Amino acid sequence: MARKESDSALRPSRRGILFGGAAAGLGAVATLGVESLAGRGTTAQASEELHGQEVIPFYGQHQAGIATAPQAHAVYLALTLRNGVDREGLMRLLRLLTDDAARLTQGEAALADTEPELATVPARLTVTFGFGPKLVEMAGSSAADIQPLPKFSIDRLQERWNDGDLLLHLGSDDPFTLAHTQRMLLKDARSFCEVKWVQTGFRRSRGSEASGTTMRNLFGQVDGTVNPAPATDDFTSLVWNEDGSTTMVIRRIHMDVDTWDEVDRSGREFSVGRTLSNGAPTTGTNEHDEPDFGAMTALGFPVIADQAHIRRARSENTSERIFRRGYNYDEQPSGTQMSDSGLIFVSYQKNVERQYIPLQKRLAELDALNQWTTPIGSAVFLIPPGCAEGGFIGEALFTH
Amino acid sequence: MARKESDSALRPSRRGILFGGAAAGLGAVATLGVESLAGRGTTAQASEELHGQEVIPFYGQHQAGIATAPQAHAVYLALTLRNGVDREGLMRLLRLLTDDAARLTQGEAALADTEPELATVPARLTVTFGFGPKLVEMAGSSAADIQPLPKFSIDRLQERWNDGDLLLHLGSDDPFTLAHTQRMLLKDARSFCEVKWVQTGFRRSRGSEASGTTMRNLFGQVDGTVNPAPATDDFTSLVWNEDGSTTMVIRRIHMDVDTWDEVDRSGREFSVGRTLSNGAPTTGTNEHDEPDFGAMTALGFPVIADQAHIRRARSENTSERIFRRGYNYDEQPSGTQMSDSGLIFVSYQKNVERQYIPLQKRLAELDALNQWTTPIGSAVFLIPPGCAEGGFIGEALFTH
Ligand code: HEM
Ligand code: HEM
Repeated sequence: MARKESDSALRPSRRGILFGGAAAGLGAVATLGVESLAGRGTTAQASEELHGQEVIPFYGQHQAGIATAPQAHAVYLALTLRNGVDREGLMRLLRLLTDDAARLTQGEAALADTEPELATVPARLTVTFGFGPKLVEMAGSSAADIQPLPKFSIDRLQERWNDGDLLLHLGSDDPFTLAHTQRMLLKDARSFCEVKWVQTGFRRSRGSEASGTTMRNLFGQVDGTVNPAPATDDFTSLVWNEDGSTTMVIRRIHMDVDTWDEVDRSGREFSVGRTLSNGAPTTGTNEHDEPDFGAMTALGFPVIADQAHIRRARSENTSERIFRRGYNYDEQPSGTQMSDSGLIFVSYQKNVERQYIPLQKRLAELDALNQWTTPIGSAVFLIPPGCAEGGFIGEALFTH
Repeated sequence: MARKESDSALRPSRRGILFGGAAAGLGAVATLGVESLAGRGTTAQASEELHGQEVIPFYGQHQAGIATAPQAHAVYLALTLRNGVDREGLMRLLRLLTDDAARLTQGEAALADTEPELATVPARLTVTFGFGPKLVEMAGSSAADIQPLPKFSIDRLQERWNDGDLLLHLGSDDPFTLAHTQRMLLKDARSFCEVKWVQTGFRRSRGSEASGTTMRNLFGQVDGTVNPAPATDDFTSLVWNEDGSTTMVIRRIHMDVDTWDEVDRSGREFSVGRTLSNGAPTTGTNEHDEPDFGAMTALGFPVIADQAHIRRARSENTSERIFRRGYNYDEQPSGTQMSDSGLIFVSYQKNVERQYIPLQKRLAELDALNQWTTPIGSAVFLIPPGCAEGGFIGEALFTH
């Protein structure tokens, strides 16, 4: 009997649907005015704030999944084009996947969907396409801007986590939706591509903390405090090219939580220049206080050390900045490992050479965090502009 | 500036905390009266329904995590006791892990917590302990009731997914909380134990569907419709022994989604006896309609076939029933696999021999689903009763 009641609660909440579009533009539900909540019902059903029906628009000037407030779960799939797939084949593949993504992100089954019932809970699903050098060249454009990064002294790259021809980045607040979406896209891609690597990441679940809370990483650090805010001029000038494209760096960075755990709290805070409790700079009290890089201790040493991560990661040249949107990974340990944890570091910037590389060079030269972190994979992709209905992602590159 | 606003939203919502205890007892927020929501604020902050602070009581007659409404994420860890750990050592280990679990489930850091900031979002965290035969015998009790299952013809068991001495079952609506909890428990266990296997499972995220919605599995089927409801007399009589203990069967069942996808919808529905759209019996219209096992087609065949899963899974002997509380798994495919998906089948019952085995025997003999499903791992555990503050899980077994 109690069950019958919950059956009727299956209808998607109208509020959830209303929220969808708005949240997409504004980045976070918290930024919505109170007005939009005025009409809330008073039944037990309406009291549950369901988020499964929230949708992020697929079509637009930019691809979704970048300025979108990060979803709880992400999967990054790097595919390699099979030998023999030509330019026409590539266009067919992109049309197919664009169509799938356009439907699935709106909570509709893909055309050849074999489990259509699993497609009904988008939960802010986004599918973002990235092109590796090979695809950009096949399309007829120049891949000069998206070459693999130069080797850095700190790198211990494993080929199994490097590069790729086509990147599909899936994000959703629901892990089941990601599983279904991944399968549908891979099914349609399989005659064209092989899987090169798959990386699965997470943040806190939707609604377990207030939206807008900066994520923590598996070292327990507040990670993401200083970051251009989507929908600001600053963000636009750092991330979006004129044509709506951007570039993506994705680095799999192993974090040695075991040796990190041997360091005391002050040592850990020293290595970054921020506190563990709330992420405030060690020269301040609140998370978003401006660090005082000139402050000195009584003994005459800088409070934020020369090798502190936040000092090394900040350039005097304010155009050398990036937008970070990474995820934690935590795979099941194998053999004698206690854990296999780290960060799927993901950054977006107009230009890798001018914005990302100077920063990564500085960090590779000196950064206290390097003691516990090791880059084990690296890839660079062009993120083509978004497309309009009827078009496909990457179309603009095929102009010749 | 917008950021400052979201900082103030960091305080845990009072409502979230209030919900915690209540939800624990009742199993689902949906079952709460509207009254408890009367006091909700009208600020944008209060409009977010945060669930990260909800807690499930740790101490009690029964261990939590069984009658608890299933959380979105689960991890099952099977540990093997190291050679040389004696009865005293085992008791020390259990005291230690009980203390960790008691704290972490209430949103408090473990005693030796190295990332205490990661312990602050329990999101209905539960930690449930299971004892394999070796532990039960070390404690001085009889393990007759929890022997490995007999071999079934359908089994293709891999030793890497079988058995174990100590099972830790972690559940939470937040994946990050699980990662932290797993690490803390393994750190404290590592001088006593090695990891035998780890299984990670998911359902839909918290709040993406109305609570009380029956989960679907990766075949797209509604899975869990006919199941004794926690807190009913039926449940008590099937699951809880007098002393508060129960037994757990955990089977890793591979689901071949590729061949399943080749079958048309009516063939799929025929194999189970229920529709894909809403899980209704093929003789009815709503999910919870009683199947009509006597109904015949015009041609004189049973509508619910002899080999249909739900016919085979139901015994005329109503005491041969179990409580199912499984999770989906979807690991990254390796080699030429398109997917590595399945069900972490988990059932609880007073007695494995009398309730589980007859059922599993019938299904092994004949079940249309066997064509696409393969058990690849199997283990049986005693779930000791819960404990009171100051005690430890399993204590009652050490009475001799
Ligand atoms: C596992 C590796 C890493 C960890 C654990 C880590 C952690 C952190 C933390 C805790 C902060 C301070 C809070 C914040 O503003 O987000 C920070 C800041 C930052 N990190 Fe990293 N980071 C890692 C790798 C990188 C890499 C590879 C880059 C770029 C090449 C990078 C670029 C930055 C930047 C630009 C900032 C902001 C600096 C500022 O205050 O201006 N980080 N990181
Ligand atoms: C991957 C393997 C399996 C799949 C995909 C599966 C799927 C299903 C589905 C779709 C239903 C109907 C809806 C419901 O009542 O939950 C069902 C019912 C049931 N299943 Fe399974 N199942 C599997 C394995 C098992 C196993 C191993 C057992 C026990 C040994 C089992 C016992 C039951 C029971 C007792 C029912 C309820 C039957 C009734 O109506 O009385 N299932 N299962």
